[in-house]
Amino acid sequence: MPRFFIDQPPDNGVAAVVGDDARHIARSLRMAVGENITVCHGGVVYECAIESVGGELVTARVVEARPDDSEPPCRVTLYVAEPKAGKLDLIVQKATELGAARIVPFLSERCVSRPDRDSSDKRLRRLSKIALEAAKQCGRGAVPEICGQMGFAAAVKDAARADVSVFAYEKESSVTLKDAIAGKLAVGASVSVMTGPEGGFSPEEAAAAEDAGVMACSLGRRILRCETAPLYILSAIGYEAEL
Amino acid sequence: MPRFFIDQPPDNGVAAVVGDDARHIARSLRMAVGENITVCHGGVVYECAIESVGGELVTARVVEARPDDSEPPCRVTLYVAEPKAGKLDLIVQKATELGAARIVPFLSERCVSRPDRDSSDKRLRRLSKIALEAAKQCGRGAVPEICGQMGFAAAVKDAARADVSVFAYEKESSVTLKDAIAGKLAVGASVSVMTGPEGGFSPEEAAAAEDAGVMACSLGRRILRCETAPLYILSAIGYEAEL
Repeated sequence: MPRFFIDQPPDNGVAAVVGDDARHIARSLRMAVGENITVCHGGVVYECAIESVGGELVTARVVEARPDDSEPPCRVTLYVAEPKAGKLDLIVQKATELGAARIVPFLSERCVSRPDRDSSDKRLRRLSKIALEAAKQCGRGAVPEICGQMGFAAAVKDAARADVSVFAYEKESSVTLKDAIAGKLAVGASVSVMTGPEGGFSPEEAAAAEDAGVMACSLGRRILRCETAPLYILSAIGYEAEL
Repeated sequence: MPRFFIDQPPDNGVAAVVGDDARHIARSLRMAVGENITVCHGGVVYECAIESVGGELVTARVVEARPDDSEPPCRVTLYVAEPKAGKLDLIVQKATELGAARIVPFLSERCVSRPDRDSSDKRLRRLSKIALEAAKQCGRGAVPEICGQMGFAAAVKDAARADVSVFAYEKESSVTLKDAIAGKLAVGASVSVMTGPEGGFSPEEAAAAEDAGVMACSLGRRILRCETAPLYILSAIGYEAEL
């Protein structure tokens, strides 16, 4: 069933879908009065029946409301070093499907791509839209927040605040991802995951992250690409915590 | 270090790199006599020093030979329902990084994309090349085998032969991936993973797979895209078995 995120909770049992989503319902989906849609707001999922269809506003009566149960038990923030052009789109889409609550791009020493500040608003809008579309499609109850770019030091400081915080480091040979997360992903826990750019983290960055309390871990025997590493870790967290 | 797969084992301590790889060493990498390359053959990794560079043949003396230790402890075959155009390239690249030993595209009821037989040789070569390049880049000791397209029944029959065999089914609500694989991934075990097309498996297909002994499992609370599901499962298997 089509799923939409709305900015305001239903009022007197009627949900209002506006803007692009209303146009999508009216023109692309060509839905009619009486057909069903799902709307999400504030951690609640509302099953609704359409009452009116207009190009700017669709209203729908709430038939059933239930707490969302599609969100992961842990709140995972993904800190992803700026990858080469285009890869961040893929990472945001897949990280949304895999349950990330928040995605923070950051700059590190070996980043080849260094998006300028001028384009940052436009980019943020594009990435937020990718996250929104992915959240609708995979049936999530919330859309991950996409944050503006941070510097490395700020990202580490932010990451270190979580209950469990790890970074992927190809030179780490003793601590595995399982060592770092197994048995630690309690319901409600906050988890920080940091992954590096194409060339990985420098030894100085790795030392700074460890000093701040972010744990270096190995992702196994092969070197994963910078866009594959976050998907591997989010999958492992999902497997470990959700099932 | 640049890594190459060679067709013949080193002869009298000298490895021969030919064809595209030789041209790549000579022209793109512009490597010289004395520089080091890694070559792989038959599960052995050879660290070598270049002895001669030509556009069609590069020879290199073996300095050290060791058994490859980058291959996963389980032998995983991924059976992937034909997805829409382009997605199979991504799946093959990522599945190679994530350790799949063999990748088998198959046709199922709801496949939107149905590549014709005429293009199959060309496609097989392209996918094999993607797997080869990904294997070089991530430092694997073997290149996954890409098989020709199978029908659904043949894929199920083949999958069911493994020690552990699962398929991702969105209507499965009780058996999780963890239920299906945890504690069962012994060293040397063969594992089959089947994932569906954009619209998932039909109930009839799911019943047929289960009858054959391939276990239906849920991938959690969200609906993963057809290209995300195999990467999630391969990551979970890697996390469960490797670390």
